[in-house]
Amino acid sequence: MRNDQRKNNDIRPISITTNYIKHAEGSVLIETGDTKVICTATIDEKVPPFLKGEGKGWVTAEYSMLPRSTNVRNVRESARGKQGGRTLEIQRLIGRALRSVVDLRALGERTIWIDCDVIQADGGTRTAAITGSFVALVEACNLLINEGKLDRLPITDYLAATSVGIVGGEAMLDLAFVEDSSANVDMNVVMTGTGNFVEVQGTGEEAPYSKDELFKLLELAEQGVKKLIEAQMETLGELELYSNDKSNGGKNGK
Amino acid sequence: MRNDQRKNNDIRPISITTNYIKHAEGSVLIETGDTKVICTATIDEKVPPFLKGEGKGWVTAEYSMLPRSTNVRNVRESARGKQGGRTLEIQRLIGRALRSVVDLRALGERTIWIDCDVIQADGGTRTAAITGSFVALVEACNLLINEGKLDRLPITDYLAATSVGIVGGEAMLDLAFVEDSSANVDMNVVMTGTGNFVEVQGTGEEAPYSKDELFKLLELAEQGVKKLIEAQMETLGELELYSNDKSNGGKNGK
Amino acid sequence: MRNDQRKNNDIRPISITTNYIKHAEGSVLIETGDTKVICTATIDEKVPPFLKGEGKGWVTAEYSMLPRSTNVRNVRESARGKQGGRTLEIQRLIGRALRSVVDLRALGERTIWIDCDVIQADGGTRTAAITGSFVALVEACNLLINEGKLDRLPITDYLAATSVGIVGGEAMLDLAFVEDSSANVDMNVVMTGTGNFVEVQGTGEEAPYSKDELFKLLELAEQGVKKLIEAQMETLGELELYSNDKSNGGKNGK
Amino acid sequence: MRNDQRKNNDIRPISITTNYIKHAEGSVLIETGDTKVICTATIDEKVPPFLKGEGKGWVTAEYSMLPRSTNVRNVRESARGKQGGRTLEIQRLIGRALRSVVDLRALGERTIWIDCDVIQADGGTRTAAITGSFVALVEACNLLINEGKLDRLPITDYLAATSVGIVGGEAMLDLAFVEDSSANVDMNVVMTGTGNFVEVQGTGEEAPYSKDELFKLLELAEQGVKKLIEAQMETLGELELYSNDKSNGGKNGK
Amino acid sequence: MRNDQRKNNDIRPISITTNYIKHAEGSVLIETGDTKVICTATIDEKVPPFLKGEGKGWVTAEYSMLPRSTNVRNVRESARGKQGGRTLEIQRLIGRALRSVVDLRALGERTIWIDCDVIQADGGTRTAAITGSFVALVEACNLLINEGKLDRLPITDYLAATSVGIVGGEAMLDLAFVEDSSANVDMNVVMTGTGNFVEVQGTGEEAPYSKDELFKLLELAEQGVKKLIEAQMETLGELELYSNDKSNGGKNGK
Amino acid sequence: MRNDQRKNNDIRPISITTNYIKHAEGSVLIETGDTKVICTATIDEKVPPFLKGEGKGWVTAEYSMLPRSTNVRNVRESARGKQGGRTLEIQRLIGRALRSVVDLRALGERTIWIDCDVIQADGGTRTAAITGSFVALVEACNLLINEGKLDRLPITDYLAATSVGIVGGEAMLDLAFVEDSSANVDMNVVMTGTGNFVEVQGTGEEAPYSKDELFKLLELAEQGVKKLIEAQMETLGELELYSNDKSNGGKNGK
Repeated sequence: MRNDQRKNNDIRPISITTNYIKHAEGSVLIETGDTKVICTATIDEKVPPFLKGEGKGWVTAEYSMLPRSTNVRNVRESARGKQGGRTLEIQRLIGRALRSVVDLRALGERTIWIDCDVIQADGGTRTAAITGSFVALVEACNLLINEGKLDRLPITDYLAATSVGIVGGEAMLDLAFVEDSSANVDMNVVMTGTGNFVEVQGTGEEAPYSKDELFKLLELAEQGVKKLIEAQMETLGELELYSNDKSNGGKNGK
Repeated sequence: MRNDQRKNNDIRPISITTNYIKHAEGSVLIETGDTKVICTATIDEKVPPFLKGEGKGWVTAEYSMLPRSTNVRNVRESARGKQGGRTLEIQRLIGRALRSVVDLRALGERTIWIDCDVIQADGGTRTAAITGSFVALVEACNLLINEGKLDRLPITDYLAATSVGIVGGEAMLDLAFVEDSSANVDMNVVMTGTGNFVEVQGTGEEAPYSKDELFKLLELAEQGVKKLIEAQMETLGELELYSNDKSNGGKNGK
Repeated sequence: MRNDQRKNNDIRPISITTNYIKHAEGSVLIETGDTKVICTATIDEKVPPFLKGEGKGWVTAEYSMLPRSTNVRNVRESARGKQGGRTLEIQRLIGRALRSVVDLRALGERTIWIDCDVIQADGGTRTAAITGSFVALVEACNLLINEGKLDRLPITDYLAATSVGIVGGEAMLDLAFVEDSSANVDMNVVMTGTGNFVEVQGTGEEAPYSKDELFKLLELAEQGVKKLIEAQMETLGELELYSNDKSNGGKNGK
Repeated sequence: MRNDQRKNNDIRPISITTNYIKHAEGSVLIETGDTKVICTATIDEKVPPFLKGEGKGWVTAEYSMLPRSTNVRNVRESARGKQGGRTLEIQRLIGRALRSVVDLRALGERTIWIDCDVIQADGGTRTAAITGSFVALVEACNLLINEGKLDRLPITDYLAATSVGIVGGEAMLDLAFVEDSSANVDMNVVMTGTGNFVEVQGTGEEAPYSKDELFKLLELAEQGVKKLIEAQMETLGELELYSNDKSNGGKNGK
Repeated sequence: MRNDQRKNNDIRPISITTNYIKHAEGSVLIETGDTKVICTATIDEKVPPFLKGEGKGWVTAEYSMLPRSTNVRNVRESARGKQGGRTLEIQRLIGRALRSVVDLRALGERTIWIDCDVIQADGGTRTAAITGSFVALVEACNLLINEGKLDRLPITDYLAATSVGIVGGEAMLDLAFVEDSSANVDMNVVMTGTGNFVEVQGTGEEAPYSKDELFKLLELAEQGVKKLIEAQMETLGELELYSNDKSNGGKNGK
Repeated sequence: MRNDQRKNNDIRPISITTNYIKHAEGSVLIETGDTKVICTATIDEKVPPFLKGEGKGWVTAEYSMLPRSTNVRNVRESARGKQGGRTLEIQRLIGRALRSVVDLRALGERTIWIDCDVIQADGGTRTAAITGSFVALVEACNLLINEGKLDRLPITDYLAATSVGIVGGEAMLDLAFVEDSSANVDMNVVMTGTGNFVEVQGTGEEAPYSKDELFKLLELAEQGVKKLIEAQMETLGELELYSNDKSNGGKNGK
């Protein structure tokens, strides 16, 4: 039995509150257990310089933790004068993951900025940020449709993420902070609604892991992501996904 | 009649939720109308170098806005690589204001870090931050008492703040963003429970103001702060304030 | 009696030397007692991005202290890699104060940069900077008139500033450093030639102050500013002020 | 057939030159095809603050590319004033990977700094950096043994890394730049001599990938790493690996 | 004839005003023609980390230009967030030059900070800074003697600097800005009272120069420095220089 | 006899390897003794803002040392967040020196970026960088000729640099690190193929030097540069130098 009475293949209770911040084009408070992240989506009718005139849009993300979202206060990165390596790594991951299910050509020449701000952290903040951001992103796209700027969703699949790991010799799903900090192996998995992998990042700093262990962890992750996507569906309803004919246009509009 | 049907001397609805972030020694979500600020207090059993060995503590504050707390997304200061002038000015104000009602000698050689993070902005974020931080600060001090580290509250008075201004020729209390941005005169006032002034910052960039107007604004501010302190009292109960005998020790322990 | 034999409502000797730096469009050495500030005005025939095409100009200020202008050497902000909160706060104040007496539309699409560099500090550097900058600003505008770029002064009123405070229980005008550092209440007041207020910033970090004390301080400030504006008049002669009909154009051209 | 006539499961020619920089405690030029990286190991008889007095050492890495190691000149990060997200992500990966095969307690209270500088880039620079750094790290440890500071190698296993990916629908091993930039899926795999995984990082930004594809890529990676470790053995000879009895000490001395 | 009627081997009028800033241990306003630099010396009873416990002191310098010391406003380095290459180069030069005539062992374990702030620039600011700083440095040392902290001056020789250059084919002494900006060759020369060279920095970016031209320039520089040292002597009186017996202790106490 | 058996007027063995980095338009590994520097030249078909529309090109340089090129590891400047004074000084010198032998008008509106990265340092890195960069620069210009973008070389003369110094009372050529660090006088000299001076930078921080010593050092430098230019000629063949008629166009096209 785990600390919070979960079985190894249970995810924590999940809650997704939409329209959380009145100014944003899409906004979500996602809670997975005691981890709470505000995800907003901002529409910017410009693209970054490297995409100008390409007929494609862009999705990019930023991530931050409030100083006291953690057990010990962490110094504000704005006060430090730079974003740390962990922050940059996470926000690159979030942006990359979201772009994997967006047809950038269908989005049109605009950027959607995703901001993920961790209000309270208890493990799995980056995966919660991805799961919540997907919802905020869809909301922003829905707004573009309502405003007549898009005909249909440029979203090709659902997307969610969870963490898995080996703790005390056992493979576990959706690690809370206390589990994460004693894990020998720690893996973040981002998957689509159709069950494909977008990112697999598994780290065995404390102890390298065997192929069998790797497979066991992937199976747990599949179970977890499936439940998270069910929660997204409850919130968003069934989405009319964008189908890009890959045999013709190739590489997802990118 | 104002946009939101208030009279000129009405404050907006106020809500103070304590224990908002589970990790912090004190934490508050304060809402004044649509302005929402998370205030946390962190106890650090050290003092800054300039106070080492002085037998006194310190209270300091940081302030930040989530990128999409505002109508238009503002660039994250950590991404910019520095805190802007407005941010620095506001956090200096918050720290100074709180210190005015703390007997630093009674606090002992420790620092209380206040973090104010604006989740949603609709005018008056700095004054809401002060009003909410006072509550978080008291909570952190109560924790020190419960842990046996302090005998009694080192707090000498209640403290709250509001904004007033001249909009369309009329003096108004507790400006919402739409009022603030069309105000000719804009004033932030920090006051104590006994009705004294801690900070008065009145700016007439758009139109210099007369002494009569100044007096009118101060009166409105007094009314507003009084109601805010009532809200603090409802949340905190009646506090047993610290009385430092100024005829003897002078200058508030500082 | 104060340290330097002044009465509580005396300002220190004031001296304004114009044409102090040969390269600048306007330049002043202002001395109030031992406080010495070089103020220059630079004309830049561009406006910041947010004003492009608005038909209006801009006035902005920067402030700095030489490392050894103070009793103890302060580390150069360029070596530190950033401007401190105090610096940013002061330069925002100076810019805002000057803009309150400039009709930006009458100035035309150009920026006037004000640089205030403290050569020697003995209290009241920010208020001396405002008082001196006003003179440098007028000089730069006079140059624009001489060069045929402006028809008349875009200046709507005189502008000067002083500090007041409560020291040892007594309200005093124009605090020297030794007074300022022992003051319980410290207030900077910026006023116009017609006696209106542009900025009132009163801080009671050491001891909150009553409304009576506030009124007493404002009265002293009025007396001080009046004398400073007399000194400006001696230097500049009587100015032909710009009158913008506020009932029509509103908000000072801004 | 691939551009350079390799089969899909071929790695590029590999060359490891030791003692490449005369000053460093360990130094290697590793070449995999046209990718060339200088890896140095520096012994520092101190540990970072968070490890002081723990009786353990530390291994940390930095990574950089010469401006013209790439096809288009990349701006020097020192001139930009900060290390980019990609750099930070890679150097965190290198350090983490190396630590997975070091018994930090056996290393003793010292830090080994690894510097990886890419002289010429043609895909797979981060994996070449890991493979080369392992050799430099062992060399530095050998020096510590020669100097009598260590009794035996604190290294628990060999370590090497390679990249795999899906290019034009085919799974390929050890991607060159031209392949990497057209890959739909891109995966970096770090493994030990005993065939366990240390890091698996697979990204399907262009097209999410199935579990079958994932397994196919892992098999290719296993083949590649095996050959790289053979090359390390040729260079270093057979190492006497450190065996920490995990049933007793747990978690690799960390 | 030159612009200002000087002959090619004339220096500009020089003026050295001591005690210019009341707070500093040594302070000078040096004027060479229209170039005006404030030089202050600050005594700090500490040495930098690399000298701790060595029984020697340190002299270091910082240099800056007021934004409007130049014809066109230069952006404040503190606002830019870093000191430029020219600034760093100049302040390294000033520090190095001054240290060449200080016996650091005789100075004792303390640092003298030199600050050179250019108030008005008209060519030759770095050489004026050196000439003026020498005077401020001696004043600070005299103060140490008066306070009983030093027995005698740790100064081994006088030190001054001037610029020379080839303008329109003619070698000229002490270039004003208009000459400097059209010079083909530009050389800064720092010399001692006994006629030795401390720094020779000659640049022929516009046109490489022959050895004869180099010799001609050095001769002019010698004449100029001689006059500058006479001006220092008038200000400081004849100094009792420190004589370190180089045949025994070597290398100037460094 | 010197450490490495050289006579005082010997340079160290020199080796220039061209085409060292496959991506760069010009690239060289230069070795002078144990000092090894990679120099690359990058062609950028743009000019900096200050040259736009002037019909002239630009040559600029950057310099860096690998962290372990030195005996003790030096902290990476990208990690520190800024380039140090020494780095900026050296890269300004390299750029200035190269521009002295380029007719910028003949180069056309393009920039050549020079990157000098020290792989291994043993004294004289800046002078080796200049000598090697000249070769890389010529190679890049040859490429422009081959591509039909230039008719002929815009190079007006050969260019090389060496260091000289006074060590243990003797004037020596081409100082190795161990000599450099015990030198009383240290001089870097940049000269052209026709024997003119481009830069002379002589520093006597440890002991001011006489005019005779200066002359002696210049003579040694002339001998060294002559040999370095012979090595350049062997590598590049005899160049067809650009002759700009200075009596007409003046100042080298600048």
